[in-house]
Order: sequence, then structure tokens, then C-alpha cells
Amino acid sequence: MENVMPKYLLKYSYLCLLILLMMTNKAQADNGYKLWLGYSKVTGRQLTDTYRQQLRYLIFPAASVQLNAARAELLTGLNAMLDLKPAEVKDIKGGQTVVVGTPQSLKALAITVPDSIGKEGYLIKKTLINKNQCILIVGNTDVGVLYGVFNFLKLIQTHRSINELNIADRPRLMYRVLDHWDNLNRTVERGYAGSSIWNWHKLPDIIDQRYIDYARANASVGINGSVVNNVNADALILSHEYLLKIKALADVFRTYGIRIYLSVKFSSPIELGGLKTADPLDPEVKKWWADKADEIYRYIPDFGGFLVKANSEGQPGPQRYGRSHADGANMLADALGPHHGIVMWRAFVYDNKVPDDRFKQAYNEFKPLDGKFEDNVIIQVKNGPIDFQPREPFHPLFGAMPNTPLMMEFQLTQEYLGFSTHLVYEAPLFAECLQADTYRYGKGTTVSRIIKGDFNRKLITGMTGVANIGSDLNWCGHPFAQANWYAFGRLAWNPDQSPANIAADWLRMTFNNDESFLSPVKKIMLQSRENTVNYMAPLGLHHIMGQSTHYGPGPWVDNAGRPDWNATYYHRADSVGVGFDRTNKGSDALAQYAPEVEANWGNLKSCPDEYLLWFHHLSWTYKMRSGRTLWDDVVWHYYAGVESVKQMGGAWDKLRGKTDPERFAEVKQLMALQLKEATTWRDACVLYFQTFSKMPIGPGYPKPEHDLAYYKNMKFYYVPGIGGNNYMTN
Amino acid sequence: MENVMPKYLLKYSYLCLLILLMMTNKAQADNGYKLWLGYSKVTGRQLTDTYRQQLRYLIFPAASVQLNAARAELLTGLNAMLDLKPAEVKDIKGGQTVVVGTPQSLKALAITVPDSIGKEGYLIKKTLINKNQCILIVGNTDVGVLYGVFNFLKLIQTHRSINELNIADRPRLMYRVLDHWDNLNRTVERGYAGSSIWNWHKLPDIIDQRYIDYARANASVGINGSVVNNVNADALILSHEYLLKIKALADVFRTYGIRIYLSVKFSSPIELGGLKTADPLDPEVKKWWADKADEIYRYIPDFGGFLVKANSEGQPGPQRYGRSHADGANMLADALGPHHGIVMWRAFVYDNKVPDDRFKQAYNEFKPLDGKFEDNVIIQVKNGPIDFQPREPFHPLFGAMPNTPLMMEFQLTQEYLGFSTHLVYEAPLFAECLQADTYRYGKGTTVSRIIKGDFNRKLITGMTGVANIGSDLNWCGHPFAQANWYAFGRLAWNPDQSPANIAADWLRMTFNNDESFLSPVKKIMLQSRENTVNYMAPLGLHHIMGQSTHYGPGPWVDNAGRPDWNATYYHRADSVGVGFDRTNKGSDALAQYAPEVEANWGNLKSCPDEYLLWFHHLSWTYKMRSGRTLWDDVVWHYYAGVESVKQMGGAWDKLRGKTDPERFAEVKQLMALQLKEATTWRDACVLYFQTFSKMPIGPGYPKPEHDLAYYKNMKFYYVPGIGGNNYMTN
Repeated sequence: MENVMPKYLLKYSYLCLLILLMMTNKAQADNGYKLWLGYSKVTGRQLTDTYRQQLRYLIFPAASVQLNAARAELLTGLNAMLDLKPAEVKDIKGGQTVVVGTPQSLKALAITVPDSIGKEGYLIKKTLINKNQCILIVGNTDVGVLYGVFNFLKLIQTHRSINELNIADRPRLMYRVLDHWDNLNRTVERGYAGSSIWNWHKLPDIIDQRYIDYARANASVGINGSVVNNVNADALILSHEYLLKIKALADVFRTYGIRIYLSVKFSSPIELGGLKTADPLDPEVKKWWADKADEIYRYIPDFGGFLVKANSEGQPGPQRYGRSHADGANMLADALGPHHGIVMWRAFVYDNKVPDDRFKQAYNEFKPLDGKFEDNVIIQVKNGPIDFQPREPFHPLFGAMPNTPLMMEFQLTQEYLGFSTHLVYEAPLFAECLQADTYRYGKGTTVSRIIKGDFNRKLITGMTGVANIGSDLNWCGHPFAQANWYAFGRLAWNPDQSPANIAADWLRMTFNNDESFLSPVKKIMLQSRENTVNYMAPLGLHHIMGQSTHYGPGPWVDNAGRPDWNATYYHRADSVGVGFDRTNKGSDALAQYAPEVEANWGNLKSCPDEYLLWFHHLSWTYKMRSGRTLWDDVVWHYYAGVESVKQMGGAWDKLRGKTDPERFAEVKQLMALQLKEATTWRDACVLYFQTFSKMPIGPGYPKPEHDLAYYKNMKFYYVPGIGGNNYMTN
Repeated sequence: MENVMPKYLLKYSYLCLLILLMMTNKAQADNGYKLWLGYSKVTGRQLTDTYRQQLRYLIFPAASVQLNAARAELLTGLNAMLDLKPAEVKDIKGGQTVVVGTPQSLKALAITVPDSIGKEGYLIKKTLINKNQCILIVGNTDVGVLYGVFNFLKLIQTHRSINELNIADRPRLMYRVLDHWDNLNRTVERGYAGSSIWNWHKLPDIIDQRYIDYARANASVGINGSVVNNVNADALILSHEYLLKIKALADVFRTYGIRIYLSVKFSSPIELGGLKTADPLDPEVKKWWADKADEIYRYIPDFGGFLVKANSEGQPGPQRYGRSHADGANMLADALGPHHGIVMWRAFVYDNKVPDDRFKQAYNEFKPLDGKFEDNVIIQVKNGPIDFQPREPFHPLFGAMPNTPLMMEFQLTQEYLGFSTHLVYEAPLFAECLQADTYRYGKGTTVSRIIKGDFNRKLITGMTGVANIGSDLNWCGHPFAQANWYAFGRLAWNPDQSPANIAADWLRMTFNNDESFLSPVKKIMLQSRENTVNYMAPLGLHHIMGQSTHYGPGPWVDNAGRPDWNATYYHRADSVGVGFDRTNKGSDALAQYAPEVEANWGNLKSCPDEYLLWFHHLSWTYKMRSGRTLWDDVVWHYYAGVESVKQMGGAWDKLRGKTDPERFAEVKQLMALQLKEATTWRDACVLYFQTFSKMPIGPGYPKPEHDLAYYKNMKFYYVPGIGGNNYMTN
């Protein structure tokens, strides 16, 4: 048969292949919308039979919306995974029945639940009730039951045995919150997954199915709070019109145990209330906020509270009026307190008029305020002292404020980690910070123990993640970015879980349980963050990305609007060497840590390579542990980073046919683009730093494709994630 | 059992019900992403058996990307609808085989295809080949085959018999194009379905599955062109960087027979090329465009051409240099001509400095240019003379330019039809225009015949629809808005098809074939546009919507930036009466029509009620055909419009369980919001016009809930569809 393809088409063979791949087998196609709740059919006769036998009957009286949601989820999951519709019965059929509820909803069965699992915990166990064996899923509250059901479904999703069951679990942190940096015009600041999922125009009347599926996904991993608007807040969010919209979302979220929170602009009393001041000590201002809180709680009885970015990057705050962060936060806390709301007050503050190292500013401002905050204020501290860089040392505030609740703030959206193009599984980054030892109460005082309140049981506790969620079909832009949302929830529930186990669970639930797929992909995920550190900012380099867009490399940036927005401020490269001296011979930021940490990182002998240039300015010829010079080691890391991306792509290619063709093709394309961008990062950075080191790129390495001028002149238009306009500005 | 629902929750019972509805039966849930290509399982044993028997074997050699796409679609559809994987064979098995291809691809079988079906037509027939009966799907070209396959699948989707088949079809128009008013920052001007589906940042590297599914949907209804960027164009689209992105989209579209087009800014030679002028007669300007065209065709050999909005609403154009539209269009046509590209030049021009009735301006500017355009220029004319209002008379240019190709421009996105909240099936609006009689070549000279080129076979022909597509899961915001995309494709293929038949096909393909669902829903669809005319702008009222946002009513708008943006410019209400006198005693716009039309619409005896206030200023007490005064008739229509929305909601409620719960709940909510907004339209308009008529609202009608001041003071923030910023402005 003659080939009728026009000649010019032959050129596009790679693309055509992809298209053919993507347009075939639509029946099996998976666009990723279902996240880790796809409830794929369980395969394997034996496994299916074991499950079906034990789940033939159900006792699940559900008289609340949360219990109803839990029951609907259970039935959906069992039906999808096992083609099973358990018969609802009154009496337990021995060995074949699942019993679900609270002591109250299961009153007839006289179930007891230990207090130790708390208000949100659950128990899943094989037990005897009236001498009849059953699977019991219980919590002290409806939401505990909901969590229990999701975790029971997870057992089946991950093909675990349910023959012996005795699971008791409870969250280790109270507030497990997603922060959406979503503007009211539906742009998302630092969002790389389309526009905001909140359709403000159609709210409150239209409840998008997305809101429900968002809440389901959150509940499935134990997330119990959502801040729906950008920390760079628009005062309009507190207007009557918008509060009605917020209420509609809150009504959906409540069904899944999620409280809604708002980012508020500190100057709202002026912009919205028409007052002349927003001074937190002004009685009229206090009254305005108290009245506003009362109004909110009339609509939303379980409203969570406020998130505040104040006196940071141009946002208004109490310092405008000569007041402290404590004055500002406490004033809001007083307004919310009667309704059991909290204030999450961000420690991410810095001022370019302060000549001191930006690293030190949050500590300088907040440490003196320890113990000065109301009980319902929690200080939100980013994992590191600068700004969500590929690698940062843990923030010096952790452990430094013994009488103040500190809430971990992680960033899920990949502002500094390749947007939604680069596969970066962030759990290792999170765990690295959580397991870091602050030494504040002796060896073993991990950040995790600090935020869990192990050393001060009176404090409220929490963790927040800046969401990576948008209107893209697959929610997060990159199929693997979903894993970061999932992992955040898991770590907020229990910060000491292992990234490897979380990755395995996520892969099983999201893709499949085939070991020949799981094993190589888990490996890819676990290496991915280190790869990215290598090709972006190895050995402790930081903040060397493109200006304002934060897209691509920009180590040469030296003319930003503020000195501390320049890359040169952070890497301090010169003909002698590179790195920021934060020892006592430099900015002395290390003094903000416990003496053990300062000693460890301040000493070149003990400071790990990973943090080297965070704390030391070293000569290009400095001899590294590897035996290479610093320059050669920088080069080695950049090339190793790119090489590992190449290998990752090769490993993925071998998995064709082991998952659905749609996501296979999507990831394949993304990996090709990641390789291209990683190469740009490498070549731009190596060429730039070479202008200082004047040393050659080793003979084994391919030369950069272009010269430095090429990389400096690369232009990017309409880069996503640059925040939108506010209706009300001041 | 005790009810454990907190009391405050009881208030939310309606919402809770909806949520419960939406969270149950996830297995059957349909979020609308699949459009009319869901390929639902065929039910009914007899029907399924008949299909399966005849489709057991397949002969479909596919050596081109288009044939491959067609085969993949056929296999996907048969598999999904019939659980059928036809065996691919070399020889026909009598009565059980489908044979698909072109005479070339099926060379061995010596198929002949009549020339009459043209390059894009197809044949589907039961026939004998070598004495063996088979179903033959053929076209003269690969794309003809693709259309044939989609139409064959449609037979099964709509449960038609395939026992006797003899279908020959071909498109009646050459250029069947969707216009996307999508900005490069992913906002969509007048878009109400989320953000742009084009992810410019990730292009050209990432081919989103959406692009493929978009192309499939278009091909399934015969759309063969796509203008991917806003007519208010950004010069950047022609830059090298963006052309590479365009090329990547073109490569996808080509697979489905779709050519890509670009909206271009007339001043691009200045902004992008650095020239001092964009004068179309300047040799450097000509060369710039010719070079640019050459560059484009190097990347995209089948590039479709340019769409131009010039000298309209602030856009640059040839008149800046004292040149005509023909000068501008022909210059671009010369650049594209050698590559077989076309120029779509918009007739939507008006100038507030021109004191004449805006209604007349397009005709005044273009009529004198008849015959002056190059062969590859087509003038894009909106269906009506103003701007996509709920009802307009046909544009007077149709039939007035016998020597110029005129391309119909319809608007699918509901800028003036309730955004994506109101259920408005637009096919009746389109058909009303297409079947309108221009009388230009005697009685029966319908607009349809004009644009089909029936009176001048030398002209190129086409129809364009301003897309209603965005990043929403269901593409169009409202599940029923998909029907407008579908209907546009069907009417562009053949403008004389009936809206009722198109609605029936769409419903069967998109929802199901259950008559008890189809019949009431088809009725809802067919009435929907008239409902909306009634509650928005009955009896020929037009352009009385909210200013700039075009959201909600704004008959009081009298202070817009330009006189012809004011509602008062159009309705001219005063104490005597209302309406725009366009007879020879007024603006004389009617003189732009054929004498028969002028006589018909100019005479109060013959002018239909629908167009009355388009052409006449009538007293409030004018006696209408209904026997009511004009005032009472205005009131009657507004109230009838709202009443019909209420009835539509009631009819939908009865269909619970007859379709998937997800879309059922979504439409239910949308209808409730539509009722609310329709009521606002009614009350605001009636109260406003009452300030002139000073007459009462009849006793049978419920009083408006608020006073006029309330409606005038309603504030809407961040209304969607307000276009975005351009990177390059001038």
C-alpha cells in the first residue's frame, strides 16, 4: 500500500506518534481528574474474593451530612473497585459485615471508642460484636468516621489484606490547612495549573462539582482547613457579597470536615469600612473587626479564622501605626476568639530598608514577641529563612519561640521547583526540614517535635501548604504534582511518616499496584528533588532564579527593584569565590540557631555540602569532600542534575504500557521539557559562574550549546503565576 | 436514631441535598468533558446484536495520520458503545464487514467515489463489493473518510438502523471556522467557561490532551478551521517564539482536518518589525508581511490565513493611512495568496465620530468596496448590524455585495445571552438569520443562499463562530452551551438543517436516547432563545445590557465612553414612547435592505412584532396585534420570559433519574440562577421603562421585589469576559 502521508508530515513523526498514542484507547484514558481516588478495579481473583466475602453486608446509619458523605464514599469505592454493593442490614452477619459509625450513631451496638484517638482519629479493626465477627470502622466524631472510611478504602486501593485489622490512628497536628494564593479575578499567584478553581462569579448559586471533589480529596488525607484567597489579599473578600460566596463554599467543605479560612488585608477597615485608620489599638478598628467576625459567624458557624500577611512585601500591617505584630494579631484574635476562630499570622516578613541579612529578619522581628500572642494566634513560619528555595536550612524560628505556636508553612506549588513542568516529589524536602534537629531542647529536638507541641502541650499546632491546585483537568498541571498535595496531607496528619511509604501509597492509588511499575517510579520520585537541587542550585546556592517571574535561571539578576530581590545578593560570586558568609565573620545569621547547630554549620569540617554556600563564602579552588575544587564540584552537580533527568526520562520510557496511555504520553512530554529546561539552568549557571571562577568546564562534559549572552537574553512572555490585580487597592 | 446534625446545618438543606446528589453514584457521574463523543453503551439486546453482527470485521488500511485518527475513533467508539473490537481482515466477510477508506487507500478493492461529494464529502452505504455485502464508508480524501467515520458513529450513538444505508453528504461551505477570542495571558474576551485552553507557556513542548479532544470534537461536526487568538490581537503572536507554539497546535489540528488561522494586528510591522508605518501601500510593509507569511508557511504548510479586525473599537487599520479596507485586506491577501491562505476581514466596524446610525456604518463602508477585494479575501459579517444581540434583523450587507465573498459570523459565547448561566440553544437564532429572505435576487434569496455562493459560484464561502470554549471541565461552562458549539458545526456544514433535528442528535449523543428525556428537553432547548429575548429585550429592544461587562440589565446606561455604547442611544425611550426610528423618517437604515424588505419592515402593518422597536419609535399606548398597548405588551413579554424560565425549571425537575446525577444537579442549579437573573432583568427593565411610560404594571403580575434604584446600584466585581492586557500595545 502506498504511503499517502504528505511529505511535510513525515517531519512531525515524533509528535504524530504522541498524538496517536494519546488518541487511542480512549476507553482506558485517564486524564488525572480523579486524583488518588480513581478506585480502579481490583484485579486478581483471590484478592477480589477475599474482599467481597468480608464486605457483603453493611451497618452504617448516617444521619449527618458527614456520615452521609462517608457512606457515599464507601459505597462508591466498593462498587468501583469490587463491583460490590453491600446489603444494608440491621444485624451483623458474622465475618461478612462492615460496621461503621460513632458510639452515638451505633448506639444500639454499644460500641466504645478509646479517648486516645481523639476527636479526629479512627479505629479500623476486626472485632466481635455480640459474638459476631465484623470489621468495625469507628471514630469519636463523624469526621473521625470519614477519615476511617477513607483509610479503609485505601487498604483496598493498595491491595492490603483486610484479614487481620487493628488500626488506630489520629492526627498529630490540629490545623492541617491548604493555602490558596487565588485572586478574585481567578488568576493564581504562583499558580501553574490553570486558573483558580473558585468561580466567584457563579458563586454562591452554582456549586461546581470541583468543590466537592476538592473537599473529598482533602478529607481523604486528613486536610481540615482551606484558606481560599491569596495572602496578598483583596479587602473585597470581607464584603457582604463575597461572604455569601464564602458561605456557599463553607457549606460544601463542612460535609468533609473542612473549615474555611480567609486571608484578610490588614487595612480592610479603611478600604471596606471607610475608617481613617487600621491601627490595631484604635477602638473603632477593634469594633470593626469584631463586628465583621460576628457577621462572618452568622453565615458560617464553623468559620476557621484569618490568615494575615502583614508588613511584608508592601502589604499593610500594624507597623504602619507603630504597633507590633503581636498587637495586630491579638486584635484579630480577640475578634475571632469568642467564635473559636484562629489567626494564622505569617512570619514571612522582610524589609529592604533593613540593612541586615534578609535571612535574619523574621527571627529578629518575632523572637522578641515570644509569649506575647493570644492563645488562638499561630505564627506561620516557612520551612526555611528565605523563600521556599529548592533547599533551605530549617528556619531559625523553629524552637526559638517556646511559648508561641508555630505552624509549618510549606509550598506545594513549584514556584522555585520548575513550575508544573518538572517532576519534583517534595516529601523529601518536607521531611528534611521536619526531621532537622534544632537542638533547642537537646539532641533530637526535631522541627517535627517543635511543631507538634511536644515541648509545650498548651500550644495549638498546625501545618499549612501553599496549594498547587488549579483548573487544569488534572488539578495540578503535572500528574506527579498531585503527589505533593497528597504527601502534604499525609505529613500534616503525621509529620514523621516516610516519604517513600507515602510515595508508594500515592502511586498505588493513583496509577496501579503493579510492582514493575511501582518500583522504578518510586525511585524516580524519591530522587527527583535532589536532581532539581543539582541542576538549579547545588551546594547551598539559593535565590538565583529569573526575576519576578521566577522562571528559569537568573544568577545574573542585579538590578531588581530591591537589593534583596537580586540573585547577586545571595550568591555573592566574585573572582575569589562564591557563597554567603553567615558565620560570625559575616552576617552572623548562624547565631540565630542553637549553639550545636551553629557549631555544626559554622564549621567547614562539619557543615554538610548541601548547606555550604548558604553559610560560607569559599574560594573557587576550595577543596571539597569529593576531592574536587569547589568550581569543579559546582560543575559536577549541575551536570549530574541534568544527567539524572535524562536517566529519569529513560526509565519512564521503559514503562510504556504499564499505565494508561494518556498520562504516559503526558509525563513523557513533560520529562522532555524538563530536560530542556534543566539543561538551560545548567548551562546558564555554569557559564555565569565561570565568568568569576575563570576556570574551565572539565573535559568530560558536553559544552553548553550557547554562550552566556544567549541565556541572559532569553525572553519569556506571559509567564504564568504572576499575580493579578486587586479590585480594591490602597 | 437521634438526628446528630447540628441545628445550623438544617438551614442548608437544599444545598445539602444537592451535594448529596452530586457526591453519590460517582461511578455514573459525567462531568461533561467528553462532549457529544461520550460513546455511551448501546442498550437493548436487539439493537446491540444487529450492530454487532454487521460490524464484526473491518477493512481499514490507514497510512496517513488522518486515516489513523479515523480508525482510532471508529475502534474507540465501537468498543465503548458495543464492547466490540472488529477483527481486521483482508477480504470482506459478507454482511459482517465495514470497509473504510479512499479509492487510493482501498486500491485493491477498486472503489469508485462520485465527484459530487467533493473533497470533504463522504458516502456511507450498504453495497456489494466482489459480490460480498458490506458497509462502505468512503471519501475522496482522508478527511472525507474522517467525516464519514464520525457520521457513521453518530448513527450508532443515536440508535439509528444500519440495515439500509445510503448516505452521501458534503459540506455546503468551504471555511467552517471557530474564532477564539483568547488572549496570550489566557484570559478570554467574552469567555465564560474559565480560561483559555491554550497553554502558551507550555507550548510547543507540551501537547495537552485537550488540544486533541478539541480537534476531535470539531472534526466530528465538520469544523475545519480554528483562529486561536483574539481579534483584538497581540502583535507578539507573529513572533518566532509564538509561531513555534502555533506550529505545534497546527500539527495536532492537521490530524483532524483542521487548519489553523491567526488574528493579526494590522500594526504588527511597527510593533514587531520595527518599521515606521503599517501603511498597506508601503513597499516595506508589503515585504514585511510577505516575509512573515513565508516564515509561517515554512512551519505550517497548510496554514489557513489571517483574521483581521481593523479600524474598529480602537484597533489599527488601513484608514490610519488614508487607505481603504480593500487596500489593507488585499495587501495581506497578496502575502498569503502564493501559499493558498485566505484573509478573513471583519465588517464589524463603527466609529463614534461618525454621526450616522451605527446600524448603517458597516454597509456604508463596505458596500462601495464590492468587487474590489482579492479572490482570497472573505468579508466576515456578523449576523446582525449591531452586535450579537438576543435578536437582530439580518445584516444588510448580506446580498448587497454580489461580487464579494461574505462569511457569516455568529457568536457562540453568550456575551449577550446570559453568559454560561442561561440555557439558550442558539440554533434557532442562527437559523432565523440564515433563512431570512434578503430578496436581493427575488423572493427566496435567503441569507443561507447568499453565503453558500448560490448566486456567484466563483466566490469562496464560509461561516465562523466565536467560540464558547474554555478550561472548564465541561468546556463551555453550561452543559447545554455545548449544544451551541455542536449546532454551529452542523450549520456551517449545511446551513439549512433544522434546529430541532440538530438538538435531537446532540441530546442523544450527549445524554441518552430515552424518549421520555429527549422530548421534554428538546422542547426546553427550542423555546430557550425566545424565552431569553422575552426577559432581556423583547419586541426589538436591543443593546440595553450592563455597560462594558455586558452583565445584567442596563437600560439606563447613558454615560458610556462613547454615545453608541449607551443603551439610551438604542432604545430612545421618552415620555411619548420607545424604539429607534430607522424608517426614512428616522435614520433610514432600512434603505440599506432590498425594497421588499424595507417595505415589509418599514410598514407597521407588516413589520413583525419581533423587529418592531428595531425600526420604529412607537407611543406607549400604540395598539399591538395582541390587542394590548405597547406598554402592556412590553410588560407581558418580560413576565412571560420569566414565567417560561420557571416552567423550564419545573420540567427539568421532573427528569431526575433520567440522566446522570452530576449534570442533572448542575443544570438544576443553573436554572435556579437563570430564574434569579431573568427576574432581575425583567424587574429592572420594566421599572426603568415605567419611568417613561408612567403606566402601571398590570394587576395580574407580581410586583418587582425592589425599586429601580436598587437595580441601578447593583455592583458586580470581577465579571468574567473582560479581556486581558496585551504584552505589546501601541
